[in-house]
Amino acid sequence: MVIKKEDIIKAQIRIKDVIHKTPILTNQSLDKISDATLFFKCENFQKIGAFKMRGASNVVFSTTKKKQQNGFITHSSGNHAQAVALASKLAGVRSYIVMPKNVSEVKKNAVVSYGAKIYYCENNEKAREEMCKDIIKKTGALFIHPYNDYGVIIGQSTCFKEVCDDGYKLDYIITPVGGGGLASGTAISAKYFSPMTKIILAEPQNADDAYQSFIKKKIIPVTSPNTIADGLRTSLGDKTFNIIINHVQKIITVSEKEIISAMRLIWERMKIICEPSCSVSLAAVLKEKKTFLNKKVGIILTGGNVDVTKLPF
Amino acid sequence: MVIKKEDIIKAQIRIKDVIHKTPILTNQSLDKISDATLFFKCENFQKIGAFKMRGASNVVFSTTKKKQQNGFITHSSGNHAQAVALASKLAGVRSYIVMPKNVSEVKKNAVVSYGAKIYYCENNEKAREEMCKDIIKKTGALFIHPYNDYGVIIGQSTCFKEVCDDGYKLDYIITPVGGGGLASGTAISAKYFSPMTKIILAEPQNADDAYQSFIKKKIIPVTSPNTIADGLRTSLGDKTFNIIINHVQKIITVSEKEIISAMRLIWERMKIICEPSCSVSLAAVLKEKKTFLNKKVGIILTGGNVDVTKLPF
Repeated sequence: MVIKKEDIIKAQIRIKDVIHKTPILTNQSLDKISDATLFFKCENFQKIGAFKMRGASNVVFSTTKKKQQNGFITHSSGNHAQAVALASKLAGVRSYIVMPKNVSEVKKNAVVSYGAKIYYCENNEKAREEMCKDIIKKTGALFIHPYNDYGVIIGQSTCFKEVCDDGYKLDYIITPVGGGGLASGTAISAKYFSPMTKIILAEPQNADDAYQSFIKKKIIPVTSPNTIADGLRTSLGDKTFNIIINHVQKIITVSEKEIISAMRLIWERMKIICEPSCSVSLAAVLKEKKTFLNKKVGIILTGGNVDVTKLPF
Repeated sequence: MVIKKEDIIKAQIRIKDVIHKTPILTNQSLDKISDATLFFKCENFQKIGAFKMRGASNVVFSTTKKKQQNGFITHSSGNHAQAVALASKLAGVRSYIVMPKNVSEVKKNAVVSYGAKIYYCENNEKAREEMCKDIIKKTGALFIHPYNDYGVIIGQSTCFKEVCDDGYKLDYIITPVGGGGLASGTAISAKYFSPMTKIILAEPQNADDAYQSFIKKKIIPVTSPNTIADGLRTSLGDKTFNIIINHVQKIITVSEKEIISAMRLIWERMKIICEPSCSVSLAAVLKEKKTFLNKKVGIILTGGNVDVTKLPF
């Protein structure tokens, strides 16, 4: 499938009443540190606290009433789970969430507060998928993949579309890359609505499957991702990989120390809360300052769901 | 002196290029918890991270070039110090800050980064004032009181003026009260620009001098303020007291536990960083829910300068 310009425009209209049009913030202090002009698209202020609400809502609300009736199901370590739970609630149908046992309390409680039913599984891909299949067999719920789904990718693409709508002419747009939903959605949006903007992805060195896949031009799944950026421990899917390989200019990888340091800078200078996963983009800008020197750089701050009792600083 | 409407309008024009017009945020989740409609005026996004920039800039930039030349001096535990330092820097003159020895690293470093010279003293009013006098004798610097100064009060009044300019018709506006600069400035602004809005102040039980003074109709200085809200440990001055006693409807006091709980709610639900001192207003709303039931309530989030390595949760 080739995502069309109209798909993004329609998705934006479809979900506009269930998501926030998030603000774009600037910060003189971070501009000075980076020697660039930074524009932060604050999806940490999005409903459920992360951009994932866009993709999940787009899938839920593009499904017919009849097909919605048995509810939705997904497996997710966090933000996508909350998104599916809330989008299902807003559509008036049930949701089932398969989560790893070791998920944070904050994320678990949020999912419960949206009325979802949680099923706990072992923390590996196989366990998750098998449990999902079981529940689908029993309930008839529709599965929403966290990223490797055109409906999800199109939903995420509405984020950068809003930046373009606001008239920003950016030299670069940077997103973190985990499974690649936001990364590929952003790339497609840029293609149609801001072709002069180059797409850069940022990834933890300790979970650099997208970087490896990009370099070797084939999907290299992540093996033992050991990163604080818990939203970026997943591997690319075929759909997200194909878009990324064709539209992304570069993937920058950053160390754990660089991620935590960037996160702290955002907290202290911007006075806003963002996740470790969300901080890799600023870490990438600070790591390759020459690339971004005096450029206009958009950074999507992807989410703010942090357990404030367990901070890395 | 009676502060006139024109004084506030002139101050707003005077400082507009050196301060941010801060955003007003809303949050459905906190509305639901409080059973009110809350409007958060985000001075934690203000320059230097707190509303204090307004008062200090107003004094610095209403001083003649000739009188500015020996610089400015103040004693402050934090935000006012940063404000005087930055305002002086922007005016191109020196600043001298007298600080208690036990001040937080974050606040100390910020003051140094604005080029101020710091003098450390014992953590009591007498030591602070004596050291200030010494430095004034040596340097000829002008003293800017943290709150008991009409120029400072007028500067702080521009914050609520902005809320009124934006067309909000609030039933209540709540500010924390320490020395009373923001509290009295807000009261005066409401009198001229939103007379239907009632003024409520919020104060820690453990530093309730404003509450005691308000009830007994005379200034009762705070004796041993033992509160996490470090910006609210000071006593009212005669100028701020006189305005507060005439224009404020009520002072609500809250416990340390209520302050920390409100702070955490703001962090987790709004994804923004605010100080303990800044959180007493939401704590007050949640404590007296009946008063604010279904009302439009403005809350000034006063500052976001927190040492993120030393959180109370």
